[in-house]
Amino acid sequence: MTLPILTQPLTAGAFAPYGDVIAAEGEPTMMINRGMCGRHHDLAALDFSGADARAGISLFRAVPRSFPYELDMMERHPEGSQAFLPMTDNPFLVIVAADKDGAPHEPEAFVTRPGQGVNYHRGTWHGVLTPLSEPGLFAVVDRIGPGTNLEEHWFEEHFTITQG
Amino acid sequence: MTLPILTQPLTAGAFAPYGDVIAAEGEPTMMINRGMCGRHHDLAALDFSGADARAGISLFRAVPRSFPYELDMMERHPEGSQAFLPMTDNPFLVIVAADKDGAPHEPEAFVTRPGQGVNYHRGTWHGVLTPLSEPGLFAVVDRIGPGTNLEEHWFEEHFTITQG
Repeated sequence: MTLPILTQPLTAGAFAPYGDVIAAEGEPTMMINRGMCGRHHDLAALDFSGADARAGISLFRAVPRSFPYELDMMERHPEGSQAFLPMTDNPFLVIVAADKDGAPHEPEAFVTRPGQGVNYHRGTWHGVLTPLSEPGLFAVVDRIGPGTNLEEHWFEEHFTITQG
Repeated sequence: MTLPILTQPLTAGAFAPYGDVIAAEGEPTMMINRGMCGRHHDLAALDFSGADARAGISLFRAVPRSFPYELDMMERHPEGSQAFLPMTDNPFLVIVAADKDGAPHEPEAFVTRPGQGVNYHRGTWHGVLTPLSEPGLFAVVDRIGPGTNLEEHWFEEHFTITQG
């Protein structure tokens, strides 16, 4: 038996407990380049702990998943935020959960719209990267530095995520 | 009269004097998520000067340009690197130049392949953001901090960039 989760559209309000939606929504913060470019400024709370830690840009290429998606594990990075910026305009699946007693509690699932990325706040439980189509290519801005920065939680009872 | 420039394909080698090509080329640095995701690790030299400066993620949405493209200005950011990560799989135009006596010298133009981003090293002369198709949407990782961080150079004699 598995527990059902229905996906929701990704919105800044619904995602606020978990992190930032990185999107060029609404009016730009400023126009630059003689009016040819809008800058939506500083959209993610980057947060990296440790004196030797810094921000870095990596690329992730993940195998696309499909619905129904079985969720058996979530992870978190206690030492840093982690931003995922799709390098295509394909929606992807974002799974997050609050923490309760050191374990993910009541996961929620979101499907992005084209042009949306996410930044998981430091220590936020999330699913692994789950694109929904090829190529599952993302730029990732996360913590580069020494030390262990990964916790995994395996669920005894799995979840089945279907499109809401 | 304008001076002609032909575009080149963007490669790490040709771009090395100006910055980093951010791309998932070759074998990933490591496989994660039980083999479902390749991580190409730490691909850009982020470099932000000033005690109060930090990395941030912004989104830029620029008007698409077309060839022939007339280049009349280049800019540089003396206090920080600037990375452009396309949020679509559309190629874009990248214009860079060496510095000579405080001005851009012999600009070069590159056209990206899908999945390629760039990181301009600190102080590198570059053109404004020039997508070649809609939507001209990019995630930008650059310096968030106080102080002036923009120099512009206007050319007396313009350049005309055509596809090589």
